[in-house]
Amino acid sequence: MTAAFLERVPINQELLDALRELLGERLTTSAAICELHGRDESYHAPHAPDAVAFARSTDEVSAIVRLCAAHKTPVIAFGTGTSLEGHVAALKGGVCIDLSQMNRILQVNAEDLDVTVEAGVTRKQLNEFLRDTGLFFPIDPGADASLGGMAATRASGTNAVRYGTMRENVLSLCVVLADGRVIRTARRARKSAAGYDLTRLFVGSEGTLGIITEVTVRLYGIPEAISAAVCAFPSIDAAVDTVILTIQSGVPVARIELLDEAQIDAINKYSKLDHPVAATLFFEFHGSPAGVAEQVDTVKGIAAEHGGADFRWATTPEERSRLWQARHDAYYAALALRPGSKGWPTDVCVPISRLAECIAETKRDLSQSSIPSALAGHVGDGNFHLIFMIDPQSSSEIAEASRLNDRMVARALAMEGTCTGEHGIGYGKMDFLISEHGEAMSVMHSIKQALDPDNILNPGKIVRL
Amino acid sequence: MTAAFLERVPINQELLDALRELLGERLTTSAAICELHGRDESYHAPHAPDAVAFARSTDEVSAIVRLCAAHKTPVIAFGTGTSLEGHVAALKGGVCIDLSQMNRILQVNAEDLDVTVEAGVTRKQLNEFLRDTGLFFPIDPGADASLGGMAATRASGTNAVRYGTMRENVLSLCVVLADGRVIRTARRARKSAAGYDLTRLFVGSEGTLGIITEVTVRLYGIPEAISAAVCAFPSIDAAVDTVILTIQSGVPVARIELLDEAQIDAINKYSKLDHPVAATLFFEFHGSPAGVAEQVDTVKGIAAEHGGADFRWATTPEERSRLWQARHDAYYAALALRPGSKGWPTDVCVPISRLAECIAETKRDLSQSSIPSALAGHVGDGNFHLIFMIDPQSSSEIAEASRLNDRMVARALAMEGTCTGEHGIGYGKMDFLISEHGEAMSVMHSIKQALDPDNILNPGKIVRL
Repeated sequence: MTAAFLERVPINQELLDALRELLGERLTTSAAICELHGRDESYHAPHAPDAVAFARSTDEVSAIVRLCAAHKTPVIAFGTGTSLEGHVAALKGGVCIDLSQMNRILQVNAEDLDVTVEAGVTRKQLNEFLRDTGLFFPIDPGADASLGGMAATRASGTNAVRYGTMRENVLSLCVVLADGRVIRTARRARKSAAGYDLTRLFVGSEGTLGIITEVTVRLYGIPEAISAAVCAFPSIDAAVDTVILTIQSGVPVARIELLDEAQIDAINKYSKLDHPVAATLFFEFHGSPAGVAEQVDTVKGIAAEHGGADFRWATTPEERSRLWQARHDAYYAALALRPGSKGWPTDVCVPISRLAECIAETKRDLSQSSIPSALAGHVGDGNFHLIFMIDPQSSSEIAEASRLNDRMVARALAMEGTCTGEHGIGYGKMDFLISEHGEAMSVMHSIKQALDPDNILNPGKIVRL
Repeated sequence: MTAAFLERVPINQELLDALRELLGERLTTSAAICELHGRDESYHAPHAPDAVAFARSTDEVSAIVRLCAAHKTPVIAFGTGTSLEGHVAALKGGVCIDLSQMNRILQVNAEDLDVTVEAGVTRKQLNEFLRDTGLFFPIDPGADASLGGMAATRASGTNAVRYGTMRENVLSLCVVLADGRVIRTARRARKSAAGYDLTRLFVGSEGTLGIITEVTVRLYGIPEAISAAVCAFPSIDAAVDTVILTIQSGVPVARIELLDEAQIDAINKYSKLDHPVAATLFFEFHGSPAGVAEQVDTVKGIAAEHGGADFRWATTPEERSRLWQARHDAYYAALALRPGSKGWPTDVCVPISRLAECIAETKRDLSQSSIPSALAGHVGDGNFHLIFMIDPQSSSEIAEASRLNDRMVARALAMEGTCTGEHGIGYGKMDFLISEHGEAMSVMHSIKQALDPDNILNPGKIVRL
């Protein structure tokens, strides 16, 4: 959680001059802008960079990195700043490269079901652009994140259970290396056995091995039929058991989301809805009309066996959109329950056979704490989230949230799970990463040292050098 | 194609003594056994190792690697020897570790749809074992390869179009590193954002970064309904266009395989079948009975528009098994067309929008050559294979096959494709890998040097150090 091992050195004036010559007004040292670029949406202490460079092309990113490399100055890539583990904090200062102006959609290959975009394109922008093609990009981490950031953090979200995460959906990346060289990690072929899987190496590397400037991702045909529903359950166990049986039955459900009572109460108030305050599942089904009908039948049967009988359907696009917007606003809704609070979001992911047990033990632990919290999750993957609504001024609440978080991660690891299903490591979960990987951390260290020997790429994240 | 840059040094007697002390009779220097372990199923020149060590546990593999590392002696992992680009050739001599005795199925987690096996377990052995669980492992490269070898070569096969390749289906690996340390690359959670994706780094690394000793893979429920069919087309273009439209329509076809006239003629003779000698597609559909019926309807409609009307159905398990066995024997069938010939198999993969053009140009090029060849492929992925049936004594035929291969790869690369969809690099496609990856090769070099500084792990494959 602390970054005390990193020393911050003042930025070199020559470097700033050279960057200003390259970028003109697109290089700024304004305190307000720097501060905005050193924080994400979490409780982690922000660390402002010394300067922010707004890049407009891969060549510019390459030139910026070359200049920074010459001065061994840290470089931190920035998309939309919606990460949750301090990913963009400039722990050692340095230059933040803001990629939001690299927002061109470069090439839609509708026949191949893929698209290449610049790193700053956001997922909503992409789907808006694709609307008339009959195609869509499914990965949906909630926030309107940039594709570059989503690749860098191995993002997933509500429909990963059907469509996979960024790991499965990135075909190729354009990456600027630590010395400014530019590589493409793969061709557009759907599969390849040609050498080391560099694409997957950079996906999830959080800007510590290279800066992603272009992303080629898979697209999918918009399903002929889409149907969404909400169903309340008599207990969280009953809801979780419904999820587990649905997945084990091989139903290709597109979304299956759990919200606990606290979370439902929060979204009712925040989004002006009237769901019964109970453990609840949000479903979405994609397919042909007959296929969707078949999926719905199966799932309704499973839910009924677990006491979930009252399916409320959202069939029009507007109703569906309202439903999922409420789900996506869950984080803000939870914070609004306790005005003035700051959110401490965390997530773990376990094999689905251990999910019910993991959630039950976690809820028991939470019930003994005074800190309000809400639970939601992409439970079809075995992935769930907690948000602690803490008083940011209270060191005892911070310490208590930290203990609850420690215990939840330890519980997940003991169940063969991972310390984070989708939020990533940043500088918030580095100690947990060591617990999870043990000896394998040495391999991560070797790779980091080989690709970034001067440790200028987002230093202090994932690995400690 | 040549390995002249590698010098072979005699193996150290002390090392042999130490290995013999460790393994007893499971360490052999028998010329016959060594020779068997230096060859795969391709035309590439075999290179026998100096010794073969039959390991029975991860600890033994670790001990062997430690001893070899102390003498900077090459170590080559061996599964079933069914690779196709010289992957197991001991170019610098050294010790081959045969993993076939590590064939225990360690843990079936039916509820989580995964299984952990030792590296020597073969895919048929695994599916035989799973039979009563209602689950199966879909990846099917034709040969009855070991799971360790399949992970190491990023294998795929006939139903990758639906279920993905080893890249998508390996959850975790146990790996022995170049200095003998043992790591596990991931937990069993379905997804994780915890650090660099070491699993994907080792999948496809062909034994050059570590030796895979255990593999955890995803399993799938055996579909309620399975239906397979064969359909002949008036031209190869018509067949390929049927595939492209099927994929673009989003039909979740489980297998869609193309065989050209030569290949159909070959399997008719070899497997005593009576398919019309024409460009032909083999299909398989998985799903619920209604889902399969819907898929079949759609695909029959698309095929009919392209002149493919006569679907011959294989509905019983025995008929289906006969059909796919014939497909899997395609390689041997092609060789039998020209007695005494040796096979030169090669494959490429292109974006599906370029597939028809790539196959048409390749067929035109082949038609101007005197070397007999056959074409087959997993065309739903854009992946197809050629087999040249060459006279192994004829240097002019070898040179001509080499030129045809060069042109096919160049064609695929010009169409944003890859030099190999599933056969891998071994020492046969290293020059093509450089053409494909350019500057990105430097990243592969850095990784290899970081993880295997003395270049003892399968030296001379993928990267030249």
